[in-house]
Amino acid sequence: MDIKSYIVENKDRFLDELFSLIRIPSISSQNEHKEDMVKCANRWKELILQAGADKCEVMPTEGNPVVYAERIIDAKFPTVLVYGHYDVMPTDPIDEWKTKPFEPVIKDDIIWARGADDDKGQSFMQAKAFEYLNKTNQLKCNVKFMLEGEEEIGSPSLYGFCEKNKELLKADVILVSDTSMIGADVPSITAGLRGLGYIEVKVTGPKADLHSGIYGGAVANPINILCRIISKLQDEATNKCTVTDFYKEVINLSQEERDLMAKAPFSEKDYLEVTGSPALFGEEGFSTIERTGIRPSFDVCGIWGGYTGEGAKTIIPSSAHAKISFRLVPDQDFNVITERVAKYIKQIAPSCINVEVTPLHGGYAYVSPLDLPAYQAAEKAYMRTYGKQPIPTRSGGSIPIVAGFERILGTKSILMGFGLSSDAIHSPNENYPLRQFFNGIETISYFYEEYAELMK
Amino acid sequence: MDIKSYIVENKDRFLDELFSLIRIPSISSQNEHKEDMVKCANRWKELILQAGADKCEVMPTEGNPVVYAERIIDAKFPTVLVYGHYDVMPTDPIDEWKTKPFEPVIKDDIIWARGADDDKGQSFMQAKAFEYLNKTNQLKCNVKFMLEGEEEIGSPSLYGFCEKNKELLKADVILVSDTSMIGADVPSITAGLRGLGYIEVKVTGPKADLHSGIYGGAVANPINILCRIISKLQDEATNKCTVTDFYKEVINLSQEERDLMAKAPFSEKDYLEVTGSPALFGEEGFSTIERTGIRPSFDVCGIWGGYTGEGAKTIIPSSAHAKISFRLVPDQDFNVITERVAKYIKQIAPSCINVEVTPLHGGYAYVSPLDLPAYQAAEKAYMRTYGKQPIPTRSGGSIPIVAGFERILGTKSILMGFGLSSDAIHSPNENYPLRQFFNGIETISYFYEEYAELMK
Repeated sequence: MDIKSYIVENKDRFLDELFSLIRIPSISSQNEHKEDMVKCANRWKELILQAGADKCEVMPTEGNPVVYAERIIDAKFPTVLVYGHYDVMPTDPIDEWKTKPFEPVIKDDIIWARGADDDKGQSFMQAKAFEYLNKTNQLKCNVKFMLEGEEEIGSPSLYGFCEKNKELLKADVILVSDTSMIGADVPSITAGLRGLGYIEVKVTGPKADLHSGIYGGAVANPINILCRIISKLQDEATNKCTVTDFYKEVINLSQEERDLMAKAPFSEKDYLEVTGSPALFGEEGFSTIERTGIRPSFDVCGIWGGYTGEGAKTIIPSSAHAKISFRLVPDQDFNVITERVAKYIKQIAPSCINVEVTPLHGGYAYVSPLDLPAYQAAEKAYMRTYGKQPIPTRSGGSIPIVAGFERILGTKSILMGFGLSSDAIHSPNENYPLRQFFNGIETISYFYEEYAELMK
Repeated sequence: MDIKSYIVENKDRFLDELFSLIRIPSISSQNEHKEDMVKCANRWKELILQAGADKCEVMPTEGNPVVYAERIIDAKFPTVLVYGHYDVMPTDPIDEWKTKPFEPVIKDDIIWARGADDDKGQSFMQAKAFEYLNKTNQLKCNVKFMLEGEEEIGSPSLYGFCEKNKELLKADVILVSDTSMIGADVPSITAGLRGLGYIEVKVTGPKADLHSGIYGGAVANPINILCRIISKLQDEATNKCTVTDFYKEVINLSQEERDLMAKAPFSEKDYLEVTGSPALFGEEGFSTIERTGIRPSFDVCGIWGGYTGEGAKTIIPSSAHAKISFRLVPDQDFNVITERVAKYIKQIAPSCINVEVTPLHGGYAYVSPLDLPAYQAAEKAYMRTYGKQPIPTRSGGSIPIVAGFERILGTKSILMGFGLSSDAIHSPNENYPLRQFFNGIETISYFYEEYAELMK
């Protein structure tokens, strides 16, 4: 039976199984969901054994457990290590969801739920392609699975897990479905990922909230000052980050490379429609694709301080806080950049307040060479599903652990992601079109065939 | 019986009665406390009738009811209208309270509770001075009480209430205990109050939260932009507000007047200790007392947007919000200033986001002339309690309705407040020293004597 028929025959079961994963609210950043993490890992174990793994273990780490599984067929076959994550992002602002985030529904041939794409939907495609090849006796690769529960909080335990289990995790290539493609009919492979630095800034002024009438004008207001600090981290005219040496290690692409990037399809109208932003915006001298692909960025992801309830409370708050992320490109080291940012913030902070900078997490950028056999196998696989060659792209997003795999395990990754920009990952109303889900399973199954062939 | 003995004899009852008011969580800015407002008004009615009022009514308004009471003894006597408010501020951040805000306790001869000072404790002094004069047959003034339930949200209904009840509220002077004195041994009378403008600003960018990796650097981040806007409302070098014509109507005091102000006791060390701020701060060219007394100020009272929970969420938020207050001085009209601020914000906002400015409330500044008979009566009353002349001060705080009384009723107010800067009004651990409470009752009872004498 070919893969298309297999999908048609089994699609209801595929979705039932995926939904059983989605229904477990495995939010890694919230302590109250600690038990859901274990529950989700155990559910994965059941599903992956059913899909044909010889063995599967829920392995402890310092944080949430890792689901490890394998099917070793023949030492002569190439080994593929599938990486995915079973944790998801928080759901706030919850009011903006049209359906309940952990009660998946299908509407307009789209799955609506937290994790529908990122990464339950996408990593489940890997399991189902693996199942098809097993059930039809076509698997010519050894396959290992490693599914972690901390990707959305920066994979703090997985680095140590990889260090400890180098032998176990040995593979010729790592296969990851956790990225997007340009459009439903424009296949692409993510050949580069940005790195990430993430800090929390706390500005403290008075020891308690003060009456803004009695003290207003005579003590420094932590929110006013935090806003000053943040506004100074970016030059207003050029939107460049002003932190000293922020761009020092950024690799500047040649004009040729930039010309090639400019050939990727881009519609300003579509981009504004998808994002809902009133206008394009960004670093002077670069296109939108360059701004997210080859240039670092600086975003305040959250800010809070003082009275945020109903009505008007007239206070000078004691403190103000911001969560700030920096997206980084090769060869920016997130540790170095985080240090430079912290130092700069302390430098520009006035002495009328106290400022603390806490690094939350970080990760390196990653580049996948196009002449890698696995990349070429992936290219052929997309050709078979879509009838056209996939475009190599650089994603603005970060999967810090992918750079970690290269450093620790010495293994390159191939990013076969089937998300769309409209999937609203990390946002309310996350969704994943069934077409992407089924095309993904199909393409991944071809990948194994092509890769086995190329590695013979 | 003199007032001192009367206080000693009745002090436990006074505190029991006050605590019965404090225990009702009459937070006017939160809808869930709607019923508590009515409960608190009714409790006031009982207490004020017990204190000797001829009649007392809980009168409806468009918002929370007004407690109106009177004792009319003789048309020849001067009439004093006592104004106070029975509503209180919210209690957040609740974690920082050492005791429960609505369960008053006495520790170290200090009452600890929300409203202990502002304004349940202070307005209750008025009731008890009134009671003493009634029970001892010494009252030589007609007295009216008007206690509102919306002072902390800008008295939206009281203006209309005053318009409708001009005849009922006719008085020679309005007496208010809702301000502070310089120190427990440094009596002062507030002869000026700042006005207030309060707005909410909303900056909107993308239609939903976006992934900060995929879109970071290519769409405007509403928090980054809100911080830019806020930082531009104040000049960094001078801390002056940059809004066009913000200072246009500000009355500049003569050097003589400023020299007089400079004579008020001020200790930088004490000021920093009370506020907990690392350093003094404010508008260039003015002293701390001037910055809060005769100069307008600009404070962000609250800011929020994006992810503010535990850990790291990598998003570009759809919107960011700030609550901003402007303290105003004579002759700044809050409506005009609010309009100028809104216009300026819209002018400097870049087109890559949308900005909305919503006025929340406002009030005029107020000045009380020192040659007013009631001011002189108050001066004598303080002399009798403290043995020294009270210093006339200008408070940074606003009681917008006081300026409203002058405009609508044509009646001046005298601000006999006994709060201390350490009372933490509007903050966690609000408190009111028993000494201030008892001295206040004593001084107010003298005021009635002195005022009746002066108005003969």
